[in-house]
Amino acid sequence: MAKKLGRSTIRLESSPVILSSAAIGSKMEGEGPLGRYFDYVASDPTFGEESWEKAEGKMQQLVLQTALQKGGFSPEEMDCLFAGDLLNQCVSSSYGLRSFEIPFLGLYGACSTMSESLMLASLFVECGLARRAAAVTSSHFCSAERQFRFPLEYGGQRPPSAQWTATAAGAAIVGKGKGVAVRTVTAGTIRDLGITDANNMGAAMAPAAASTLLTFFSDTCTHPADYDLILTGDLGQVGRDLLYELLETEGVRISDRHEDCGLLLYDREKQDVHAGASGCGCSASVLCGSILPAMSRGEYREVLFMATGALMSPTMVQQGESIPGVAHLVHLSASGRGREE
Amino acid sequence: MAKKLGRSTIRLESSPVILSSAAIGSKMEGEGPLGRYFDYVASDPTFGEESWEKAEGKMQQLVLQTALQKGGFSPEEMDCLFAGDLLNQCVSSSYGLRSFEIPFLGLYGACSTMSESLMLASLFVECGLARRAAAVTSSHFCSAERQFRFPLEYGGQRPPSAQWTATAAGAAIVGKGKGVAVRTVTAGTIRDLGITDANNMGAAMAPAAASTLLTFFSDTCTHPADYDLILTGDLGQVGRDLLYELLETEGVRISDRHEDCGLLLYDREKQDVHAGASGCGCSASVLCGSILPAMSRGEYREVLFMATGALMSPTMVQQGESIPGVAHLVHLSASGRGREE
Repeated sequence: MAKKLGRSTIRLESSPVILSSAAIGSKMEGEGPLGRYFDYVASDPTFGEESWEKAEGKMQQLVLQTALQKGGFSPEEMDCLFAGDLLNQCVSSSYGLRSFEIPFLGLYGACSTMSESLMLASLFVECGLARRAAAVTSSHFCSAERQFRFPLEYGGQRPPSAQWTATAAGAAIVGKGKGVAVRTVTAGTIRDLGITDANNMGAAMAPAAASTLLTFFSDTCTHPADYDLILTGDLGQVGRDLLYELLETEGVRISDRHEDCGLLLYDREKQDVHAGASGCGCSASVLCGSILPAMSRGEYREVLFMATGALMSPTMVQQGESIPGVAHLVHLSASGRGREE
Repeated sequence: MAKKLGRSTIRLESSPVILSSAAIGSKMEGEGPLGRYFDYVASDPTFGEESWEKAEGKMQQLVLQTALQKGGFSPEEMDCLFAGDLLNQCVSSSYGLRSFEIPFLGLYGACSTMSESLMLASLFVECGLARRAAAVTSSHFCSAERQFRFPLEYGGQRPPSAQWTATAAGAAIVGKGKGVAVRTVTAGTIRDLGITDANNMGAAMAPAAASTLLTFFSDTCTHPADYDLILTGDLGQVGRDLLYELLETEGVRISDRHEDCGLLLYDREKQDVHAGASGCGCSASVLCGSILPAMSRGEYREVLFMATGALMSPTMVQQGESIPGVAHLVHLSASGRGREE
């Protein structure tokens, strides 16, 4: 039975596990430092489709298919599917995943979608609501650019605080059995400290990340030292620095065990991505492609995965509104059963 | 403990209840046949805001505030908030609800959001993941028109199959105690029968409605006659007729106990809404404003509430894609404890 440790922190007593996961990317992600961890790297960013939106839908289809195949599952063995993305009306998810015919619960958490979907999938398995549940998300540089900023053909300049939307997708299958366990989750609260610059989303998300992390430590009576890795994403350089600053005012230091997915995906020396990577697919592919396998190999035991989302739209920013952020946290463990928080 | 009756049909053994609910609308909804059931009818569709998007955010704020007040709750007493809407990046929900500081799980289910959010809120309470959880959604005619179709100033003509997006919002607070109980839920699967006309969304959603309803009857071993009211929404006239047709091929007749929220909200003789109402706020306000109170008064005992969503975006329709639909079902009961399905 799930046990509430706080208002929105829940310990999953039966520790559902991630039975299988997959990550896919495109050329630039393949050339980055994590390139070799992707299950599939497309040389053609259209993924054989005739529009960027359809390409992103195809990515969701491919990544779920790959995760199912790696685990030896058929779609019929999934009781539930949690998915979302950045596109208007989350069409990568609905169009990309419709052919699987799995009961579908659509989410919108912007770039926090991987932790939101993984949290809900894990809770469904924990509570016996699903035998197995899938969590899927994606982003595509080209569909995001033309929707959030400018058509690619325009060649708009990007300020140094801007992040590069990853062309990437991740999927995880949660169930009972062997694998990396989901121990505890904390659902985040929306935070808005008044950032109005849509080219600085890291700063807009950092307060939410700090809030969720502090809530988790407080509710679980644990400290950064209890974890091998605290993985945020996608805060990028600017957001990461602000997160450290916000946590330090509360006396919490994480820098010796913290990584941000936005700073892991690309080589910022060689790849022109400014403040780092972003997009739902960034944290999803870093988690599913690199971190979960590393946990299985024993490189990390206790990991806090906290994807962060900026809940804005171009319309609201054009209307002068600030950018609310949210961050959901999932505590993953490769330590086997029986460990107490 | 929740009990699985099928792949995605779950019986809530502890029967969480709807402790409080609220509905708000604007002038046209106030003039419709359900006008007197709204908690608040705005004479000014801007709700005092300077844009349609901000107006819709204000509606979500108002409707949750009202539901909390009617139940005598503070925001701090809510452990979790499930919300979504039709606007790009679901900004009515994130901007409208950020000030409550309730742990926030964003959804995208298009017009199925009221049943998706109510289902998840109920499951969270059932499984002890939340003491109380809120479900909120909205739509606004003016923000939807300019996003999905044309700016109002353009004065575009609407075909007879088109539906009118309701300027309305609904909120429900789920917890333990006295109220209308949530007995059973069925999460829907995406269905796409190839409808490509964005002015005929009822037809696009009807296959999903039929599929979820048939799954529910099969999983619960019940029949239409076991329920006093089967409430879909928002299928409108065209979608309702198609739903009847699809169900009849399976030998199921519901017409003597079926209503569609899209056909209840407005007086189609006097109000120029073509095939009926639509928008997340349509089924949300019909349920929260009219049906739940009627159940409390004993007018209905067993009600199946199934909001339906068309998971398209203007971009995908412009690219020639068909429109996938989804429908989630919630069985509500005013019969008190102990009744078996």
